[in-house]
Amino acid sequence: MIYLDNAATSWPKPQNVYTEMVNCIKNYGANPGRSGHRMSITASEKIYECRENISKLFNIPDPLCVSFTCNTTEALNIGIKGSLKPGDHVIITGMEHNSVLRPVKKLEKTIGISISIADADKCGIVSVDNIKKCIKKNTKLIVMTHASNVFGSINPIEEIGRLARKRKIIYMVDAAQTAGVIPIDVQKMNIDILAFPGHKGLLGPQGTGGLYVRENLLLDTIKEGGTGSVSEDPYQPEFVPDRYESGTLNTPGIAGLNEGIKYILETGLNEIMRHERELTLRLLEGLYSIPKVKVYGTNEIEKRVGVVSINIKNRDCIEVCELLDEIYEIACRGGLHCAYLAHKSMKTLEKGTVRLSIGCFNTKNDIDSVLYAINHI
Amino acid sequence: MIYLDNAATSWPKPQNVYTEMVNCIKNYGANPGRSGHRMSITASEKIYECRENISKLFNIPDPLCVSFTCNTTEALNIGIKGSLKPGDHVIITGMEHNSVLRPVKKLEKTIGISISIADADKCGIVSVDNIKKCIKKNTKLIVMTHASNVFGSINPIEEIGRLARKRKIIYMVDAAQTAGVIPIDVQKMNIDILAFPGHKGLLGPQGTGGLYVRENLLLDTIKEGGTGSVSEDPYQPEFVPDRYESGTLNTPGIAGLNEGIKYILETGLNEIMRHERELTLRLLEGLYSIPKVKVYGTNEIEKRVGVVSINIKNRDCIEVCELLDEIYEIACRGGLHCAYLAHKSMKTLEKGTVRLSIGCFNTKNDIDSVLYAINHI
Repeated sequence: MIYLDNAATSWPKPQNVYTEMVNCIKNYGANPGRSGHRMSITASEKIYECRENISKLFNIPDPLCVSFTCNTTEALNIGIKGSLKPGDHVIITGMEHNSVLRPVKKLEKTIGISISIADADKCGIVSVDNIKKCIKKNTKLIVMTHASNVFGSINPIEEIGRLARKRKIIYMVDAAQTAGVIPIDVQKMNIDILAFPGHKGLLGPQGTGGLYVRENLLLDTIKEGGTGSVSEDPYQPEFVPDRYESGTLNTPGIAGLNEGIKYILETGLNEIMRHERELTLRLLEGLYSIPKVKVYGTNEIEKRVGVVSINIKNRDCIEVCELLDEIYEIACRGGLHCAYLAHKSMKTLEKGTVRLSIGCFNTKNDIDSVLYAINHI
Repeated sequence: MIYLDNAATSWPKPQNVYTEMVNCIKNYGANPGRSGHRMSITASEKIYECRENISKLFNIPDPLCVSFTCNTTEALNIGIKGSLKPGDHVIITGMEHNSVLRPVKKLEKTIGISISIADADKCGIVSVDNIKKCIKKNTKLIVMTHASNVFGSINPIEEIGRLARKRKIIYMVDAAQTAGVIPIDVQKMNIDILAFPGHKGLLGPQGTGGLYVRENLLLDTIKEGGTGSVSEDPYQPEFVPDRYESGTLNTPGIAGLNEGIKYILETGLNEIMRHERELTLRLLEGLYSIPKVKVYGTNEIEKRVGVVSINIKNRDCIEVCELLDEIYEIACRGGLHCAYLAHKSMKTLEKGTVRLSIGCFNTKNDIDSVLYAINHI
């Protein structure tokens, strides 16, 4: 199988990911942060180690500011619902995933917030100016994707972060397509809240994700429950990470994620980025040369990640994906990719797109095979 | 290690649990319900198989009524917040975990609901009459634990279910300590909403849990996002399970959970229950015979699960657990076990308890060893 569906879930994983998961279940598969026996303590230590490695990767000053969630969507819901109150205004962008759009639409309907959608340009990039135009007196939050999950376009996060800080607006970034793929520095980029997946660029298993909330920013919670701490308090604790982590954590998943991140730290994020850019360029150049193939998004390689959306003239995108799977054993995804807004912005809402998404274990041969297959189709 | 902390997380797991998790990550570790390629389809099929096996175990008429969550706490939060509106009245019991207490206290404070707490008797059991006394005109929901996570006492779920159905009150059961341990039949017991963990009695890995919501009961959501379905709709879909499952599911965790449930279905729940009861009885009888040991909860074996709370006269419960771990290599838990209310009801709030919790892989030797150790301490 040639796997080009890494924007959904990366595959394969470094071997240590699953060997550590099994080691965890077999040897320290107890409840972290609850009991005081050695297995439970080992589980807690492993989870803390993962918080530390995440902090290293994103330049987070305190590992306790990292909370684990079951996926990016949960982290986005906490950030959005935890910071918006009735009457607040939120800015999102025309490139958002439904995991941002649906929570804000829900709040608009239920508690009465207002939403502005900052436009993207024809390459799918949202400028600082377009964000600035949307700012109102009651703007409480800017929440936006770092890179589009459909078109791969990277937004100018750092400049927008500077603007948000200056205007005292909470700044939340959805790093679903960038965590472990391109550098993220929450301090340099003025990111107040970062939502990230464990199972994509960080090379961990599904069932993992995370939330960084900067110190002294107290968000409301969407879930409350047992935290293994201050059990005598009938209200959720205010300290992190307990505040955002109710119930038993996914210890084997986090142990696996820790190995994925260690792989990235050892290989070097720049090396992974260089490799993926090389493959993306090869793919783009190949696709540009095929008549009848429409490639969306920017051709400037430093403004995009390895998520490439295309259409083949007169062919249904789902049908193309089926052919790629059945005849050429190439795994990719067709349709709207849970991103209504992004397709609306890029005028692909009716057709959808074929999405080819590159991961760090893809090779030049993979790219050549997919080019061959698309040429044939 | 003698592991008696199964009420937190069961250990060990059947070997198939982790071999299937590795098989999943290695061979079909793609995104379920998103893409259409073969790996993604296999992932979706495995998840559906798990919904079916859960339905078999709990007599759920339609597997699509089973949604996956990351733990019981999430399922409880969906059930509670999804059904209560401002002005509603909810009945909980004096035996609840913080995963029930904290969400209802949160709603009391934020949207204005009222709460009644039905008393438990001195064994930790809540009678139908005590629930009935709490019913008001605006009672919308009864949410209660099937068995106490501290004292093991089993509540008369079926009788209370009958009452709830008669009075048209939504009935939600927290099966954290009973799923995979004693029989649960959502139809016979008139359970409208069932919250259950994957990593305790069902023998799956941490990071898994589930929610059953009966047909035609539409709950509000606490998270919205990509569901892989109706991507063009900016609102969360109303159909299940998509409504309650936003973002990527924990496929390897669910694949592992499926093996845990298969183990239970193959072994037979009655056989597991018989084995655990035998060990619980052995433990109780042994403990009763040790002077200075106070055993809480009922001695009627059919009214309890294998969760046994004790205290040793003049000894701090945490210190006892440390001794059991360090000297006798026995893993258990001391303290409040995230259950403020249960300790308040049983008058153990100040001291906490030492909790010994039995799982299906414990043996008579384990019980004899812990009795020996406690005798010595």
